[in-house]
Amino acid sequence: MEKIPTTLPFVGGAKEEVAQHPIGPLTASEITRATSLLKASWPANTDFNFKAVTLLEPLKAELLPYLQAERSGSTPAKIDRRAFVLYYIRNTDKLHEAVINLSQGGKIESNVRLGANVHSNADGDEILMVEKIALEDEGMKAAIAKLQLPEGSVVIVDPWIYGSDGVHDDKRMFQCFIYMKDPKHANEPDANHYAMPLPISPVICAETMKVIRIDVLPTGADATIKELGPYKVHPANEYIPEAQTLRTDLKPLNVVQPEGASFTVSNFSDLGRTVDWQKWNFKIGFNLREGMVLYDVHYDNRPLFYRLSLSDMNIPYADPRHPYHKKAAFDLGDAGAGIMANNLKLGCDCLGSIHYVSAILNNSAGDPLPMDNVVCIHEQDNGIGWKHTNYRTGRAAIVRNRELVIQSIITVANYEYILAFVFNQAGELAYEVRATGILSTSPIDEGITVPYGTVVHPGVLAAHHQHIMSLRIDPMLDGPLNRLVYDEAHPMPVSDSNPHGVGYTVDETLVPTSAGLDLDSNTNRTFRIANAAVRNPINGAAVSYKIHAPNFQKMLASPASFHHRRAEFADHNVYVTAHRDDELYAGGRYTNQSRGGTGVRSWAERGDSVEDKDIVVWVQFGINHVPRVEDFPVMPCEIMRVALKPVNFFSRNPAIDVPPSTQATNKSVLVAAEGTKAEALVGEEGKVCCVKEVN
Amino acid sequence: MEKIPTTLPFVGGAKEEVAQHPIGPLTASEITRATSLLKASWPANTDFNFKAVTLLEPLKAELLPYLQAERSGSTPAKIDRRAFVLYYIRNTDKLHEAVINLSQGGKIESNVRLGANVHSNADGDEILMVEKIALEDEGMKAAIAKLQLPEGSVVIVDPWIYGSDGVHDDKRMFQCFIYMKDPKHANEPDANHYAMPLPISPVICAETMKVIRIDVLPTGADATIKELGPYKVHPANEYIPEAQTLRTDLKPLNVVQPEGASFTVSNFSDLGRTVDWQKWNFKIGFNLREGMVLYDVHYDNRPLFYRLSLSDMNIPYADPRHPYHKKAAFDLGDAGAGIMANNLKLGCDCLGSIHYVSAILNNSAGDPLPMDNVVCIHEQDNGIGWKHTNYRTGRAAIVRNRELVIQSIITVANYEYILAFVFNQAGELAYEVRATGILSTSPIDEGITVPYGTVVHPGVLAAHHQHIMSLRIDPMLDGPLNRLVYDEAHPMPVSDSNPHGVGYTVDETLVPTSAGLDLDSNTNRTFRIANAAVRNPINGAAVSYKIHAPNFQKMLASPASFHHRRAEFADHNVYVTAHRDDELYAGGRYTNQSRGGTGVRSWAERGDSVEDKDIVVWVQFGINHVPRVEDFPVMPCEIMRVALKPVNFFSRNPAIDVPPSTQATNKSVLVAAEGTKAEALVGEEGKVCCVKEVN
Repeated sequence: MEKIPTTLPFVGGAKEEVAQHPIGPLTASEITRATSLLKASWPANTDFNFKAVTLLEPLKAELLPYLQAERSGSTPAKIDRRAFVLYYIRNTDKLHEAVINLSQGGKIESNVRLGANVHSNADGDEILMVEKIALEDEGMKAAIAKLQLPEGSVVIVDPWIYGSDGVHDDKRMFQCFIYMKDPKHANEPDANHYAMPLPISPVICAETMKVIRIDVLPTGADATIKELGPYKVHPANEYIPEAQTLRTDLKPLNVVQPEGASFTVSNFSDLGRTVDWQKWNFKIGFNLREGMVLYDVHYDNRPLFYRLSLSDMNIPYADPRHPYHKKAAFDLGDAGAGIMANNLKLGCDCLGSIHYVSAILNNSAGDPLPMDNVVCIHEQDNGIGWKHTNYRTGRAAIVRNRELVIQSIITVANYEYILAFVFNQAGELAYEVRATGILSTSPIDEGITVPYGTVVHPGVLAAHHQHIMSLRIDPMLDGPLNRLVYDEAHPMPVSDSNPHGVGYTVDETLVPTSAGLDLDSNTNRTFRIANAAVRNPINGAAVSYKIHAPNFQKMLASPASFHHRRAEFADHNVYVTAHRDDELYAGGRYTNQSRGGTGVRSWAERGDSVEDKDIVVWVQFGINHVPRVEDFPVMPCEIMRVALKPVNFFSRNPAIDVPPSTQATNKSVLVAAEGTKAEALVGEEGKVCCVKEVN
Repeated sequence: MEKIPTTLPFVGGAKEEVAQHPIGPLTASEITRATSLLKASWPANTDFNFKAVTLLEPLKAELLPYLQAERSGSTPAKIDRRAFVLYYIRNTDKLHEAVINLSQGGKIESNVRLGANVHSNADGDEILMVEKIALEDEGMKAAIAKLQLPEGSVVIVDPWIYGSDGVHDDKRMFQCFIYMKDPKHANEPDANHYAMPLPISPVICAETMKVIRIDVLPTGADATIKELGPYKVHPANEYIPEAQTLRTDLKPLNVVQPEGASFTVSNFSDLGRTVDWQKWNFKIGFNLREGMVLYDVHYDNRPLFYRLSLSDMNIPYADPRHPYHKKAAFDLGDAGAGIMANNLKLGCDCLGSIHYVSAILNNSAGDPLPMDNVVCIHEQDNGIGWKHTNYRTGRAAIVRNRELVIQSIITVANYEYILAFVFNQAGELAYEVRATGILSTSPIDEGITVPYGTVVHPGVLAAHHQHIMSLRIDPMLDGPLNRLVYDEAHPMPVSDSNPHGVGYTVDETLVPTSAGLDLDSNTNRTFRIANAAVRNPINGAAVSYKIHAPNFQKMLASPASFHHRRAEFADHNVYVTAHRDDELYAGGRYTNQSRGGTGVRSWAERGDSVEDKDIVVWVQFGINHVPRVEDFPVMPCEIMRVALKPVNFFSRNPAIDVPPSTQATNKSVLVAAEGTKAEALVGEEGKVCCVKEVN
C-alpha cells in the first residue's frame, strides 16, 4: 500500500488529560483533543470527514510487560496514549492516516496520505447523505416515475459499499438498492421495505457525492435488462408486532437472580471494563471497527489470551448478474462492528441481571459520539454442566452449566449479527454468532426461479450468500510463546499389536511455519494451541486449548475473482501467523473496494516460524445461507459457535468444584398433567424427596 | 436370523383391561398379564429371565389411519394391543420372542426360540448377580490377593457386555472390569472407583453364571501381560461435592414462570402423554430399549413426523489390546435407554416449571418395574429468536427463542447421556445429546503413554473412543409419502452469464433408492426430507425439512472388523430406507455379541425405491472422544445437536407471531459497575427508556 508523506506542523502544549490505562478506549476528551490537534495543523477552512478516531493500541512489546507488572502488583512503565485518526479531506479522495501522541503534550507523530485504491469505511453521516442525494437526483426521479408507483408511495434507499470488479472502479462509490414501503402503510416508519424491492440502482460517487449512473436491475431469469415500466405492488410482509396476530399462549419466563449477578465489573479506565467471574478475569475494550475486544484473559490467574476479537467478516453473494456480482460486504472493514452496535435495552436483549457498557466513538466531524449500552454482560444457565449417577446407590452428582455472556448486537442495514463471547465454569470460552435480521432482497418477475437465489415473497428474490467470519485469537497459554498443532485419529494397521483391526491412534502434527489449514472430519483433525514449555502435571502433555469450530464451505467465488482475492481469510478454516502489531484485520486494514494482497493469506505466505513463538491464530467459520421462505421477513437466528476448550491444561475437570444443583437453590416448580395435581414432599435442606401426581 | 418354532398351548380368557391407546406404553397390569399368560403356557417350575416385556407397536398400515381418524374427530378402527416378550429360560441359552395379543381375550400369537449367536440385552438383576459372582469366585479372590491391596479395601466390579471378536465367543458372556475405592474412604458409597482400576478382568458365562476365565490386563506400553503383583494405590480423584472445596461465588439463578408453563400435558393412555406447546402437538411414549419415543408430531395441525427416536448408539474403543479390543457397546441394544433412565429430581436436572413423566417397565421376573420421573418436560429460554433494528428509526423488533425440552438422562455404568428433543417456535425440532459422566478407565503403569488413550490421573488410562449415534426419523411431511434429497452449492463456470466468477448455484439431487450417504462441507451438502406433492405457496418449491447434523469421523475400526460389521450405521452420516415395521434399530434388533448382517446397512442394500414413498431417514452423529485430563473425574458436557428445520414448508418465518421481548414481561435487573449505582427510567408500558450509571 502506497503511503505519501505529508508534512504537518508540530502542534502541542495542550494540558494532558487524566491518565488512561494503555488499552482503555479513547475518551471523549481524547477524541476531541486528537481531532483538534489535527484540525489545527491544517488550513482553517479545511473540511474534514473523520472516518475513525480510535485508540492506537500500544506495541505488544510494551503492553505485555505492562500488563504483567500490573498483575504482579509492581508499577508498570508508563506507556504513551496514541490516537489513530483516519480522515478524508471532504469531497476529495485524499485519505489520511495520522497518529497523535496524546501523552507527550499532544503531538502529531505521523500523518500520511494513502495512495490509489485505498478507501476508507463508510460512515453514518455519509450513508444518510447518500440516501438523500439518490432521492433528490433528477435522473432518479425520472426513473422512479417510470415505475408508476401508487400515489403516496415512499421510496427508501439502502446505500451499499460498491464492491470491486476492476471495471472503472478506482474511485470510491456507493451502489444503492432502492425499495418502497407498502403503500397502504406508507406512514409506518418501520414498514418492511425489503418486501418491495424496486429495479433501479443508482451509483453515487463518494468524492463528488453525485449520482453518476443509474443501473436498471435484471428481474428475469437472466441478466437481460428490460425497459422500466409499471411496478407490480405485491402484498406487504411486515415484521413489526402490530402487523401480526400474535400468539397468546406464551407465558412469561423470568430469570431471577435473588442475590444479584455472580460477576463483578470495574473500570480499568474511563471506558474500559474489567470483569471477574468464576475464576475468569479479563478486560473489555470497544472500538469503531471491531466492537468488543477482550484483552488479557486469565483463568485462575493463568494467562490464556492476550487479545480476542472478531477480525472481519465477508458476505459474498451468489448472483452473477450486474451489479449484484459486486456484492461482497466486509461488515467490519467496510463499516464497523462498533459503530453499528445496537443500543441494548434492558429486558429485551437478555434476561436476568445485566450490566451494560457504553462506548464513545466519533462522528464524521471528529466529535465524540456517545454509543449507549453497546455491550451487555449477563449470566445464563445452559443446562447441565456435568452429571454422574452411581447406579449402585442411585445418588446423582450434578452441576449446572452457568455461562457468562459478553454480547454486542450489530445492525448492518438489513441484517443483524448477535455477537457474544461466552465463558463457562469448565475453563471453556466460546465465540457465538447468531445471524438474524432481514435478507438482502432484489426484485424478480412473477413465476421466475433462479438457481442462485430463493423467491421468499411474491416479487422478492433473496440471493444465496456466504457469511465467512474470522475470529482473531492472540494466545498466551501460560506465557506468550505458543505453537499450533493438530491431532488426527488414524486406524492402526492390522498387525500383531492390532490383530482385530479395531485400534486407532491420535497423532499430533506441529505447524512449523505460518500457513492456512483446513479441518478434515475424516481424520477428526482438531487444532490446538499449545505451550510446549509447560507440561501437564498428570500426564506430561504440553498444556493446550483446542479449537472447536464447525466446518463450512469455503468461498465459492473463483480464485481469480475479486471476491476471492479480497477476502484473504475465506479459503481456510485456520490461519496461523507470527504476531505483528499492525496485523489485526484478516481482510486487511482497508477492505472497501480493496484489491487483495493484504490480509492474513498474504501474511501467512511469509512463512514465518510459528513454533513456540508469539503467534496469532485466525479461526474462520460461517454458513452458506441458502434462503428459505422461513427466513422472511426476519430470519430465525442461525447459531454458530467456535469453542476454545482446555486440553491437558488443568489437572482435572475445572468445574468439579461447582456447587451441586439443588432444589433448595433452584426453586423449580412442578407442573401437573391436565386433570391432576402434583404434590411434592420436601425433606431436609429443602430438597424435594419425591414428587407425585394425584388424580 | 434363525427362528426355531416352538409350540405352546393357547392360553386366554382373562378379563380384558380398560382399553389403552394403541401406542400407549404397556401398563403394569398388561405387563403382568403378558408374562402370566406366557408362564402359564410353560411347565410350572420353569425359571424365566424376562428381558423385555414391551408394547409391540401396531403396524403402520393400521396405526396411521387410526391416528388420522383420531385427529379428524372420527372413530378410529380398533387396534389390538400386543405385548412383545423377550425371555430366556434361565441358565440356558434359550432366548425366546413371544407376541401376546392382549385384546383378543389374551392370546399367545407367536412364540419362537432364537438360534445361535442371537443374544439378548443385559438386565439390571443380572448385572448385580454378575458383580456378586465375580467377587465371590475363589479364583478372583486369589487374583485380588496378589495385588496386596491395603486392609479394608473395597473392590468393585463393573460388568461389561462381552463384545465380539469371533474367538470362542458364541456363548453369551460378561467381561468385567474391576476397581477399588480409595482405601482412605472405603466406606464412602459414592467413592469414585474409576480412579483406581485394577489389572484383573474376570469373564462370566451368562448361561452358567460362573467365572470361566480371569484375564490379566496389560498395563504397560504394549499388550504384554505381567505377573500380578502389588498394586500401587495413587491418590483418589473424587467427584462428590463433599470431597471438593466448592466455589463460593456462584449466586443463584432461578427460572421463574409466574403464570406457569406454556405447555399442557394430557394422557392419551395410562402412561402415554400428549403435549401441546406453541402450535406443536405430539405424543410421548417410553420403552425399555429406546426410552423416549415421539409419535405423530404435528405443527399447526400439519403432520411432520410419524415417529422419532434414538435408534441406537455404538461406542467402539481405540485400545487394540486384549481384552479391550472387544469394547464396543451398543448402549440401547445391549442394555436400553429406557431401563437405564435416571429418576429426575425437581430442581436438579432442569430449571423452571417442570412436568415429569414416569414409566413402567419390567424386571427379570416379568413383574412391572415402576420407573419414576424418567422424562421431564420444561421450557427454556435460548437467547434471542430473531431481531431487526431499523437503523433509520432506531426501533428494534425482537423476540426471544423459547424452547420446549423433552429430556431423559441415562446412566450406562460409568457414563451419562443427557438426551433431549428440543422444539422451538420457528417450527424447528432438534435432538440434543450431552455426553457426560465418567470415562471408562483401565490401569496403566507410571510413566507410560500410549497413542490410543490418555493418562487422565496417575495410574489411570482412558482409551480414546467414538460415540456414534443413530437418530431414527420416520417422516410424514404433509403426508406419509416423502423423499430424501440433498442440495449442493457449486461455483458457476466463468462465462458470459458469470463474467466475474462469483456466481454459484444450489442444485438438488434426489436419492432414488435406499442408501447410505455422507455430508460434504466442500459442497455444503445438506440433506432434506421433502414432499414433492405439496408445494410452497410463495415459490412453488416442494415443502421440506432440512437436516442439520454435525459431521463426525466414521468408525475407525477396519471394515473387516467385528466392530464395523456390527455397527451397521457407523459408516455414513445418513441412511434412507423404505419403511418396514420391524426395522426400528439401526444396529439390528439383537446387538449383544452380534455378528453384523442385520441393521440399516443391510436394509439399505435392498435398494428399495424411496422416491415419494413411506421412508425412514437415519441420521448418524457423534464424536471421537480423545480424553483430556479435564474429562476426569466427571467430564464437562460435550454437546451434539441434530436439527430439523423447515425449508419452504411455511409461507414466512413461523416465529414472526411470537410476542415481542419486553422488560414489562421479562423483568430484568440492572447491574452496576463497582463503585457506581444504576438508575433506570421507566416509561410507558413498563418499558425502561434509559439506563444510566451514576458515579
